[in-house]
Amino acid sequence: MTNKQLILRKRPIGLPEADTWSLDENPVPEPAEGQMVVRHHYISLDPAMRGWMNETRSYIPPIPLGDVMRAGSIGEVVASKIDKFQVGDVVTGWGGVQEHCLTDEKNWYKVDTSLAPMPAYIGTLGMPGMTAYFGILEVGKVKEGDVVLVSGAAGAVGSVVGQIAKIKGCTVVGIAGGPDKCKYLTEELGFDAAIDYKNENVASALKARCPKGIDVYFDNVGGDILDMALARLRMHARVVICGAISQYNNTTPIKGPSNYLSLLVNRATMQGMVVMDYAKDYSKAAMEMGMWMMQGKLKSREDVYEGIENFHETFLRLFNGEKKGKLVLKVI
Amino acid sequence: MTNKQLILRKRPIGLPEADTWSLDENPVPEPAEGQMVVRHHYISLDPAMRGWMNETRSYIPPIPLGDVMRAGSIGEVVASKIDKFQVGDVVTGWGGVQEHCLTDEKNWYKVDTSLAPMPAYIGTLGMPGMTAYFGILEVGKVKEGDVVLVSGAAGAVGSVVGQIAKIKGCTVVGIAGGPDKCKYLTEELGFDAAIDYKNENVASALKARCPKGIDVYFDNVGGDILDMALARLRMHARVVICGAISQYNNTTPIKGPSNYLSLLVNRATMQGMVVMDYAKDYSKAAMEMGMWMMQGKLKSREDVYEGIENFHETFLRLFNGEKKGKLVLKVI
Repeated sequence: MTNKQLILRKRPIGLPEADTWSLDENPVPEPAEGQMVVRHHYISLDPAMRGWMNETRSYIPPIPLGDVMRAGSIGEVVASKIDKFQVGDVVTGWGGVQEHCLTDEKNWYKVDTSLAPMPAYIGTLGMPGMTAYFGILEVGKVKEGDVVLVSGAAGAVGSVVGQIAKIKGCTVVGIAGGPDKCKYLTEELGFDAAIDYKNENVASALKARCPKGIDVYFDNVGGDILDMALARLRMHARVVICGAISQYNNTTPIKGPSNYLSLLVNRATMQGMVVMDYAKDYSKAAMEMGMWMMQGKLKSREDVYEGIENFHETFLRLFNGEKKGKLVLKVI
Repeated sequence: MTNKQLILRKRPIGLPEADTWSLDENPVPEPAEGQMVVRHHYISLDPAMRGWMNETRSYIPPIPLGDVMRAGSIGEVVASKIDKFQVGDVVTGWGGVQEHCLTDEKNWYKVDTSLAPMPAYIGTLGMPGMTAYFGILEVGKVKEGDVVLVSGAAGAVGSVVGQIAKIKGCTVVGIAGGPDKCKYLTEELGFDAAIDYKNENVASALKARCPKGIDVYFDNVGGDILDMALARLRMHARVVICGAISQYNNTTPIKGPSNYLSLLVNRATMQGMVVMDYAKDYSKAAMEMGMWMMQGKLKSREDVYEGIENFHETFLRLFNGEKKGKLVLKVI
């Protein structure tokens, strides 16, 4: 039995090509004292992974060349020399893109698969869900009656942002690519309106669907859409900078928001966030979101692809829009 | 006796040319009930005036074509049918670029010229000083030990920002154009360091003079300097967007900050401000700043030019850097 591991081999320029990584086969490791081996079932694919591949300073260190590609994961403990984790436990953590992960206990959590299926724990109850929860509530500070705009709205973070804003009594407009995703937002997730950025003029759609302007803009995409949202801010608006997927594979400098002086005109705030800062409150958030899921107020959808061999083409779905909901790689 | 009035005749593209305004001579007006006539002594020239000349939506309506050019002013009441203002009172308000102003009492305040000279009331104790005070304290939220960077540091707003930050126990670095202004910052105003953007590489100077990064950046200029400051933010930094003088005369779209994702990496906040929002606390601020001035902790410098006929060339000094401190036009 071998352990297939996806190793980062170069720092990509633009969209990563297949030879950015190598797929190595190594022996399944044995745990030393204080370690365990997790057999991965699902690996989380997230846009942020693209940033971790760059050499530049960011909120966590770059993935070193020659290391396993960093990723969130969930699986079953198959060998353990850690008291708190037993063989058979289902655990989630930063296991990376590999079939088996040898790790200490740091940042690993046991989960209960009778309450939610495994992929939910790396989606709505995992990093993307936490990002949405703390981003829209703590940074966006939404309150009843706010007009909330979210980009990347059909994605793992955006779909949760919009649903939480609806739960809080906001009017919610989502921006997504294509009629299917837009229909999903309004018909399944309860968004008030959607804008199809691939087939509509976003500036005029924003004018029509947010006629009074925007109180909170939750930005996952950056680029032109950020600029168009800035142009529609209301007084004292909050802009949550969560990501900038339109810019992650740039080979030219990042496009800064030309309309940033709208912050001045509207006494508005633009604030960045990183989910790790809220780690101490994850369990509180998971309980509240779990409750909403049980009540049917918060829906989650995972788009599952199989096989570590298919990592590259699956990873590209993050950037070409060919996915619906949270992107997950099944490895068992 | 006539009243010379500077009338806005066209919406300039780029740097305003002389024929943007006409200088008209009209009879000195007589006050009706509830009105007074103020004989202007000094008119305030501020970068924000350039924005008010554009047709685009902003924090106050554009100056209508055919109207007197909007400006802050100070002068003496020469005729009054308002109970609270007597002939001989020195008053400040939005009198515009004209020798005499006919106005009601709204937004006019009596000042005491035995405490401070007239130009100080349209400078450090006027709109620029208030902008600095509320911007650095309420929006920038400076606290002891912070590293504060301010651009346009030798100007009416920036020079007060830096001095208040010093009073609050911060390390203060100012960016200004030319060795004279930089010397003024460090030798007269007590800044810890200065960066001469006309003769230094700002990026490396920032690295050298803010080796630990920046806690608060007070931005008056926008453009490349904003980008370089963003690249040096510390965790939880605050960026105060007060103005963008480098962009006001653009004939191309405004340059947005490419490095805005530093807000995400550093969980930082970028917030716009408009001084009018703090009007109810102006008197409190004026008292505190007046005290600092008397104690010698807060210095102000006005650069006074004479004659309403010289408005155009004097106004251009706001943008070509050829002024020191607060720019004022003396009209009597």
